[in-house]
Amino acid sequence: MTHRVINFYAGPAGLPLPALERAQEELLDFAGTGMSVMEISHRSKEYDAVHEEAIALTRELMGIPEHFKIMLLQGGAHLAFGMIPLNLLRSGRKADYILTGNWAEKAYQEARLVAGNNVRVAASTKADKFARLPKAHELKIGADSAFVHFTSNNTVEGTQFHQFPQTDKPYICDMSSDIMWRPFDINPFGLIYAGAQKNLGPSGVTLVIMRDDFIEMCEAQDLPSYLRYPLHAEKNSLYNTPSTFGIYLLRNVLAYNKSIGGLQAIEANNRKKGEILYGCIDRLGDFYKPFVTEKADRSMMNVDFFLPSEDLTATFVGEAKKAGMVGLKGYRDIGGIRVSIYNAVTVPQVEVLVDFMEAFAKKNG
Amino acid sequence: MTHRVINFYAGPAGLPLPALERAQEELLDFAGTGMSVMEISHRSKEYDAVHEEAIALTRELMGIPEHFKIMLLQGGAHLAFGMIPLNLLRSGRKADYILTGNWAEKAYQEARLVAGNNVRVAASTKADKFARLPKAHELKIGADSAFVHFTSNNTVEGTQFHQFPQTDKPYICDMSSDIMWRPFDINPFGLIYAGAQKNLGPSGVTLVIMRDDFIEMCEAQDLPSYLRYPLHAEKNSLYNTPSTFGIYLLRNVLAYNKSIGGLQAIEANNRKKGEILYGCIDRLGDFYKPFVTEKADRSMMNVDFFLPSEDLTATFVGEAKKAGMVGLKGYRDIGGIRVSIYNAVTVPQVEVLVDFMEAFAKKNG
Repeated sequence: MTHRVINFYAGPAGLPLPALERAQEELLDFAGTGMSVMEISHRSKEYDAVHEEAIALTRELMGIPEHFKIMLLQGGAHLAFGMIPLNLLRSGRKADYILTGNWAEKAYQEARLVAGNNVRVAASTKADKFARLPKAHELKIGADSAFVHFTSNNTVEGTQFHQFPQTDKPYICDMSSDIMWRPFDINPFGLIYAGAQKNLGPSGVTLVIMRDDFIEMCEAQDLPSYLRYPLHAEKNSLYNTPSTFGIYLLRNVLAYNKSIGGLQAIEANNRKKGEILYGCIDRLGDFYKPFVTEKADRSMMNVDFFLPSEDLTATFVGEAKKAGMVGLKGYRDIGGIRVSIYNAVTVPQVEVLVDFMEAFAKKNG
Repeated sequence: MTHRVINFYAGPAGLPLPALERAQEELLDFAGTGMSVMEISHRSKEYDAVHEEAIALTRELMGIPEHFKIMLLQGGAHLAFGMIPLNLLRSGRKADYILTGNWAEKAYQEARLVAGNNVRVAASTKADKFARLPKAHELKIGADSAFVHFTSNNTVEGTQFHQFPQTDKPYICDMSSDIMWRPFDINPFGLIYAGAQKNLGPSGVTLVIMRDDFIEMCEAQDLPSYLRYPLHAEKNSLYNTPSTFGIYLLRNVLAYNKSIGGLQAIEANNRKKGEILYGCIDRLGDFYKPFVTEKADRSMMNVDFFLPSEDLTATFVGEAKKAGMVGLKGYRDIGGIRVSIYNAVTVPQVEVLVDFMEAFAKKNG
């Protein structure tokens, strides 16, 4: 029996065991080729089948219409932070960024580097330590805005847009930490990007979904080729050698997600996990203090809370590790505990954590 | 017994079996963590040990002094084509590019996009279909040149610089297809870059080695952060989430390379493979015609040759496949046969191919 722990890391994070077992089984001999999938040309028919399946499963699971292109790139959200303004904002267009956390701020700063004052702040909750999301009335979105950028889930702070921002402008969204956590209507989005390493697969793969009109808006001919979204879209992410093993593993995860009932089933699981964990925090509110102040903004992916002291926090992390649970230490800027309960975390695993939290509070409260 | 073939793909290419077996064995439980290496935070001590080991093994195997920084990035040679001029050529510096093949031309064109006429052609053998390298007297390198860019091995055409170009200017070199094929003196190089997927590991990892004075020459503060070499150097390639599994596999390959005697032993193997394969081509010169016209320029990594007809070429590829050898079809622009014999290809595997070639020529010649 393989030794496995309960993985609450914020990313790179746990993956569904069947997706990993499939990779392990065929690591030396993929699809009867007598080679690892890592050893095969990205122009071979065997790799191509994996590449196409990863894209088709993304389209099917998320219900993406044909007028959106799906790309599998490299460089993570960080490179996307730069590619977005380089492709879309060098000709004088204006855009509004909603600042709701660490990564949203990074996206904004990178866009400012390229497009200066044409990149504006639609709203910021920094004065509240990003412990809540802006209300509808706080949003200032220009009539001349080409898009509104937001971060659907704030990994560090543990907030999540359960309703997307109210605007008639197209969205650009960093969905790195909650993509495919539930079904949603993709039509208002011009571009979605997500590093794979939280909800989708290993690090080194970036999923980009771009609406045709946004691809047409790009002014990219003078950019180095890797930075051009229209080129990747046209070449089906095979302009250059993609991260083939990462895409293969993404395929395994998506195939598993489909087998368990798709995003409807995944959403039901995620909501149940959230209820159990937030239920515990609320029940033991004298001992566990949540970071996020507004219940409506609570993330179903990352749950931040504090214990009465730093000593108790360290003891909590240490005892949890002994009990087979890892990745619970809070992000350095916030401290406390962060529990990341992405798609691959199961309901029984969250139940184990909650039992531990109850016993810990009883003993130390 | 696992089914394995003899892999002559040009890239992604074969990897040493022990490096893959190690990955397979610990795919679900890495270093006693109870997690896959893919599932672990890139800030964890377990991943950090892998990251540091990959860098230290690169330094040790190649004998790289401390005033060079080693980076493990994403985006392949393609992104490097753009990052080099973005970091080094936006302030009016001049550079000379040696055009010896498909990829060298790409590097040149991407640099021209950024720096226009400051990017110059030092020499080109395109008029000879890139079937040879330029002679020393053909090189035109400006006294005002900040660097000379060249491609050490031309994957498509099958030429290789056995002596580096004669100049007192620093080199920038795309070593994607022959890095670590032998020991060499790194001191004249300002920057070396290599996509991992030929001689080092899986696709999705780019090895970059940069001399401190070249890092200091960069003017990168106004670039989106992922595009800044100095930032990656300063943060030890952990500014953002790296391709953790790819770097882990690179570590496995490098550890294996060390165990078999390092680059001296690998060079001896590579030279033996080259002798056997070119020996066969020269012996059967009425049947197999090499693409590369100058023997001194022949690549020890990619060997291109033609058969008497396209029909025979197709038969050759088909029969070789039946005999357990794959990846022999030539690059689309050249045709014929291309045999890629990177580090992971063994001497006995090349002997199997040569036996096949002799029998094939006898039967069809």
